[in-house]
Amino acid sequence: MSEIKKINHVAIVVGDIDQALTFWRDALGLELHHVEDVPSQKAVVAFMPVGDSEVELVKPTTDDSGVAKFLAERGGGMHHLCFEVDDLEAKLADLKAKGVRLINETPIELPGRKMAFIHPKSTGGVLVELYQLI
Amino acid sequence: MSEIKKINHVAIVVGDIDQALTFWRDALGLELHHVEDVPSQKAVVAFMPVGDSEVELVKPTTDDSGVAKFLAERGGGMHHLCFEVDDLEAKLADLKAKGVRLINETPIELPGRKMAFIHPKSTGGVLVELYQLI
Repeated sequence: MSEIKKINHVAIVVGDIDQALTFWRDALGLELHHVEDVPSQKAVVAFMPVGDSEVELVKPTTDDSGVAKFLAERGGGMHHLCFEVDDLEAKLADLKAKGVRLINETPIELPGRKMAFIHPKSTGGVLVELYQLI
Repeated sequence: MSEIKKINHVAIVVGDIDQALTFWRDALGLELHHVEDVPSQKAVVAFMPVGDSEVELVKPTTDDSGVAKFLAERGGGMHHLCFEVDDLEAKLADLKAKGVRLINETPIELPGRKMAFIHPKSTGGVLVELYQLI
Protein backbone atom coordinates (compact mmCIF):
# COMPACT_ATOMS: atom_id res chain seq x y z
CA MET A 1 0.00 0.00 0.00
CA SER A 2 1.38 3.40 -0.97
CA GLU A 3 2.27 5.38 2.11
CA ILE A 4 0.83 8.80 2.97
CA LYS A 5 3.95 10.99 3.26
CA LYS A 6 2.60 14.27 4.60
CA ILE A 7 -0.07 16.92 4.33
CA ASN A 8 0.73 18.52 1.00
CA HIS A 9 -1.67 21.41 1.47
CA VAL A 10 -4.86 22.69 3.01
CA ALA A 11 -6.97 24.56 0.44
CA ILE A 12 -9.01 27.54 1.58
CA VAL A 13 -11.65 29.08 -0.70
CA VAL A 14 -11.60 32.88 -0.73
CA GLY A 15 -13.61 35.52 -2.56
CA ASP A 16 -10.65 37.86 -3.04
CA ILE A 17 -6.96 36.92 -2.91
CA ASP A 18 -5.69 40.38 -1.92
CA GLN A 19 -8.24 40.70 0.85
CA ALA A 20 -7.41 37.19 2.12
CA LEU A 21 -3.71 38.03 2.15
CA THR A 22 -4.34 40.86 4.62
CA PHE A 23 -5.00 38.10 7.16
CA TRP A 24 -2.91 35.11 6.07
CA ARG A 25 0.24 37.03 5.08
CA ASP A 26 0.08 40.46 6.71
CA ALA A 27 -1.45 39.55 10.07
CA LEU A 28 -0.73 35.84 10.60
CA GLY A 29 2.68 36.09 8.95
CA LEU A 30 2.68 33.23 6.45
CA GLU A 31 5.06 33.61 3.54
CA LEU A 32 3.50 34.17 0.11
CA HIS A 33 5.50 32.09 -2.37
CA HIS A 34 3.55 33.07 -5.48
CA VAL A 35 0.09 33.58 -6.97
CA GLU A 36 -0.75 31.50 -10.04
CA ASP A 37 -3.66 31.25 -12.43
CA VAL A 38 -4.61 27.55 -12.63
CA PRO A 39 -7.01 27.29 -15.57
CA SER A 40 -7.50 23.53 -15.10
CA GLN A 41 -9.03 24.29 -11.71
CA LYS A 42 -10.78 27.48 -12.87
CA ALA A 43 -9.07 29.31 -10.05
CA VAL A 44 -6.30 31.67 -9.02
CA VAL A 45 -4.21 30.13 -6.24
CA ALA A 46 -1.91 31.79 -3.71
CA PHE A 47 0.71 29.30 -2.50
CA MET A 48 1.88 29.84 1.08
CA PRO A 49 4.49 27.34 2.33
CA VAL A 50 4.47 26.56 6.05
CA GLY A 51 6.64 23.82 7.59
CA ASP A 52 6.72 20.99 5.03
CA SER A 53 3.16 21.77 3.87
CA GLU A 54 1.32 24.66 2.25
CA VAL A 55 -1.75 26.74 2.74
CA GLU A 56 -3.38 27.42 -0.62
CA LEU A 57 -5.83 30.29 -1.00
CA VAL A 58 -8.14 29.41 -3.91
CA LYS A 59 -10.24 32.04 -5.66
CA PRO A 60 -12.66 30.72 -8.29
CA THR A 61 -12.45 32.44 -11.68
CA THR A 62 -15.73 31.10 -13.08
CA ASP A 63 -19.17 30.48 -11.59
CA ASP A 64 -19.45 26.81 -12.49
CA SER A 65 -16.64 25.09 -10.61
CA GLY A 66 -16.82 23.17 -7.36
CA VAL A 67 -14.97 25.90 -5.51
CA ALA A 68 -17.27 28.59 -6.97
CA LYS A 69 -20.33 26.69 -5.78
CA PHE A 70 -18.75 26.12 -2.36
CA LEU A 71 -18.06 29.86 -2.05
CA ALA A 72 -21.57 30.81 -3.19
CA GLU A 73 -23.28 28.35 -0.84
CA ARG A 74 -21.14 28.48 2.30
CA GLY A 75 -18.85 31.48 1.95
CA GLY A 76 -15.09 31.23 2.39
CA GLY A 77 -13.52 28.44 4.41
CA MET A 78 -11.49 25.25 4.30
CA HIS A 79 -12.28 23.39 1.09
CA HIS A 80 -10.06 20.32 0.89
CA LEU A 81 -7.18 18.51 2.54
CA CYS A 82 -4.41 17.16 0.33
CA PHE A 83 -1.98 14.37 1.20
CA GLU A 84 1.16 13.50 -0.72
CA VAL A 85 1.67 9.86 -1.73
CA ASP A 86 4.51 8.15 -3.54
CA ASP A 87 2.40 5.96 -5.84
CA LEU A 88 -0.96 7.49 -6.65
CA GLU A 89 -2.24 4.74 -8.94
CA ALA A 90 -1.46 2.09 -6.33
CA LYS A 91 -3.18 4.12 -3.64
CA LEU A 92 -6.28 4.68 -5.78
CA ALA A 93 -6.49 0.96 -6.64
CA ASP A 94 -6.18 0.08 -2.97
CA LEU A 95 -8.85 2.60 -1.93
CA LYS A 96 -11.21 1.35 -4.65
CA ALA A 97 -10.69 -2.24 -3.54
CA LYS A 98 -11.64 -1.16 -0.03
CA GLY A 99 -14.92 0.32 -1.27
CA VAL A 100 -13.91 3.99 -1.06
CA ARG A 101 -15.76 6.24 -3.53
CA LEU A 102 -13.34 8.15 -5.74
CA ILE A 103 -14.14 11.32 -7.67
CA ASN A 104 -11.20 10.57 -9.99
CA GLU A 105 -10.56 6.88 -10.59
CA THR A 106 -7.59 7.80 -12.76
CA PRO A 107 -5.28 10.67 -11.84
CA ILE A 108 -5.49 14.17 -13.32
CA GLU A 109 -2.04 14.80 -14.77
CA LEU A 110 -0.41 18.23 -14.80
CA PRO A 111 3.23 19.15 -15.41
CA GLY A 112 5.25 17.83 -12.48
CA ARG A 113 2.35 16.39 -10.55
CA LYS A 114 -0.73 14.20 -10.67
CA MET A 115 -3.71 14.21 -8.37
CA ALA A 116 -7.07 12.64 -7.62
CA PHE A 117 -9.94 13.43 -5.27
CA ILE A 118 -11.78 11.12 -2.86
CA HIS A 119 -15.51 11.72 -2.46
CA PRO A 120 -16.55 13.28 0.88
CA LYS A 121 -19.24 10.58 1.17
CA SER A 122 -16.44 8.11 1.92
CA THR A 123 -14.44 10.30 4.29
CA GLY A 124 -17.08 11.62 6.69
CA GLY A 125 -17.54 14.95 4.96
CA VAL A 126 -13.98 15.97 4.05
CA LEU A 127 -12.95 16.47 0.42
CA VAL A 128 -9.58 14.68 0.33
CA GLU A 129 -7.05 15.13 -2.47
CA LEU A 130 -4.15 12.79 -3.10
CA TYR A 131 -1.10 14.21 -4.79
CA GLN A 132 2.06 12.74 -6.30
CA LEU A 133 5.09 14.62 -7.53
CA ILE A 134 6.31 13.24 -10.87
CA MET B 1 6.74 38.86 15.33
CA SER B 2 6.53 35.23 16.39
CA GLU B 3 7.00 32.96 13.41
CA ILE B 4 4.50 30.35 12.24
CA LYS B 5 6.54 27.14 12.33
CA LYS B 6 4.24 24.58 10.73
CA ILE B 7 0.73 23.17 10.54
CA ASN B 8 0.38 21.48 13.90
CA HIS B 9 -2.87 19.72 13.00
CA VAL B 10 -6.05 19.73 10.99
CA ALA B 11 -9.06 18.90 13.18
CA ILE B 12 -11.92 16.93 11.68
CA VAL B 13 -15.23 16.58 13.52
CA VAL B 14 -16.66 13.06 13.45
CA GLY B 15 -19.77 11.46 14.89
CA ASP B 16 -18.05 8.18 15.73
CA ILE B 17 -14.30 7.61 16.14
CA ASP B 18 -14.34 3.89 15.26
CA GLN B 19 -16.40 4.53 12.14
CA ALA B 20 -14.10 7.39 11.10
CA LEU B 21 -11.05 5.17 11.57
CA THR B 22 -12.37 2.75 8.95
CA PHE B 23 -11.55 5.48 6.43
CA TRP B 24 -8.63 7.45 7.89
CA ARG B 25 -6.65 4.47 9.25
CA ASP B 26 -7.90 1.34 7.54
CA ALA B 27 -8.47 2.68 4.02
CA LEU B 28 -6.28 5.80 3.69
CA GLY B 29 -3.50 4.30 5.79
CA LEU B 30 -2.76 7.00 8.36
CA GLU B 31 -1.15 5.83 11.59
CA LEU B 32 -3.29 6.01 14.73
CA HIS B 33 -1.02 7.23 17.52
CA HIS B 34 -3.60 7.16 20.30
CA VAL B 35 -7.17 8.08 21.25
CA GLU B 36 -7.57 10.41 24.24
CA ASP B 37 -10.46 11.83 26.20
CA VAL B 38 -9.94 15.61 26.37
CA PRO B 39 -12.44 16.84 28.97
CA SER B 40 -11.36 20.50 28.53
CA GLN B 41 -12.57 20.30 24.93
CA LYS B 42 -15.56 18.06 25.74
CA ALA B 43 -14.30 15.63 23.13
CA VAL B 44 -12.55 12.38 22.44
CA VAL B 45 -9.66 12.90 20.03
CA ALA B 46 -7.83 10.42 17.80
CA PHE B 47 -4.31 11.66 17.05
CA MET B 48 -2.96 10.61 13.66
CA PRO B 49 0.56 11.87 12.87
CA VAL B 50 1.39 12.48 9.19
CA GLY B 51 4.64 14.13 8.08
CA ASP B 52 5.43 16.80 10.67
CA SER B 53 1.74 17.48 11.31
CA GLU B 54 -1.27 15.55 12.57
CA VAL B 55 -4.82 14.82 11.58
CA GLU B 56 -7.04 14.91 14.67
CA LEU B 57 -10.44 13.23 14.61
CA VAL B 58 -12.61 15.00 17.19
CA LYS B 59 -15.81 13.45 18.54
CA PRO B 60 -17.87 15.67 20.85
CA THR B 61 -18.82 14.10 24.19
CA THR B 62 -21.49 16.65 25.14
CA ASP B 63 -24.19 18.51 23.20
CA ASP B 64 -23.14 22.03 24.16
CA SER B 65 -19.64 22.49 22.76
CA GLY B 66 -18.61 24.22 19.56
CA VAL B 67 -17.71 20.93 17.91
CA ALA B 68 -21.04 19.40 18.96
CA LYS B 69 -22.93 22.29 17.39
CA PHE B 70 -20.80 22.11 14.25
CA LEU B 71 -21.56 18.39 13.93
CA ALA B 72 -25.30 18.90 14.53
CA GLU B 73 -25.57 21.77 12.04
CA ARG B 74 -23.22 20.74 9.24
CA GLY B 75 -22.33 17.10 9.80
CA GLY B 76 -18.75 15.85 9.92
CA GLY B 77 -15.96 17.74 8.22
CA MET B 78 -12.90 19.92 8.71
CA HIS B 79 -13.35 22.02 11.83
CA HIS B 80 -10.17 24.00 12.42
CA LEU B 81 -6.61 24.50 11.25
CA CYS B 82 -3.88 24.73 13.87
CA PHE B 83 -0.47 26.34 13.44
CA GLU B 84 2.46 25.99 15.80
CA VAL B 85 4.18 29.16 16.97
CA ASP B 86 7.18 29.70 19.22
CA ASP B 87 5.77 32.61 21.27
CA LEU B 88 1.99 32.51 21.53
CA GLU B 89 1.57 35.62 23.72
CA ALA B 90 3.68 37.69 21.31
CA LYS B 91 1.70 36.40 18.35
CA LEU B 92 -1.64 37.16 20.02
CA ALA B 93 -0.50 40.68 20.94
CA ASP B 94 0.64 41.25 17.38
CA LEU B 95 -2.63 39.95 15.90
CA LYS B 96 -4.68 42.07 18.28
CA ALA B 97 -2.65 45.16 17.38
CA LYS B 98 -3.45 44.42 13.72
CA GLY B 99 -7.18 44.36 14.44
CA VAL B 100 -7.65 40.58 14.27
CA ARG B 101 -10.56 39.30 16.38
CA LEU B 102 -9.41 36.68 18.87
CA ILE B 103 -11.63 34.11 20.57
CA ASN B 104 -9.00 33.75 23.31
CA GLU B 105 -7.06 36.90 24.10
CA THR B 106 -5.01 34.98 26.64
CA PRO B 107 -3.89 31.41 25.99
CA ILE B 108 -5.65 28.32 27.32
CA GLU B 109 -2.96 26.42 29.23
CA LEU B 110 -2.80 22.63 29.40
CA PRO B 111 0.06 20.39 30.48
CA GLY B 112 2.82 20.74 27.91
CA ARG B 113 1.01 23.16 25.63
CA LYS B 114 -0.96 26.35 25.37
CA MET B 115 -3.35 27.42 22.68
CA ALA B 116 -5.70 30.16 21.48
CA PHE B 117 -8.28 30.47 18.72
CA ILE B 118 -8.72 33.25 16.16
CA HIS B 119 -12.29 34.13 15.20
CA PRO B 120 -13.38 33.00 11.72
CA LYS B 121 -14.74 36.52 11.11
CA SER B 122 -11.13 37.69 10.85
CA THR B 123 -9.81 34.83 8.73
CA GLY B 124 -12.38 34.58 5.94
CA GLY B 125 -14.34 31.74 7.49
CA VAL B 126 -11.61 29.45 8.87
CA LEU B 127 -11.40 28.68 12.58
CA VAL B 128 -7.64 29.03 13.21
CA GLU B 129 -5.91 27.71 16.32
CA LEU B 130 -2.44 28.77 17.43
CA TYR B 131 -0.46 26.33 19.50
CA GLN B 132 2.76 26.50 21.47
CA LEU B 133 4.63 23.62 23.07
CA ILE B 134 5.80 24.51 26.59
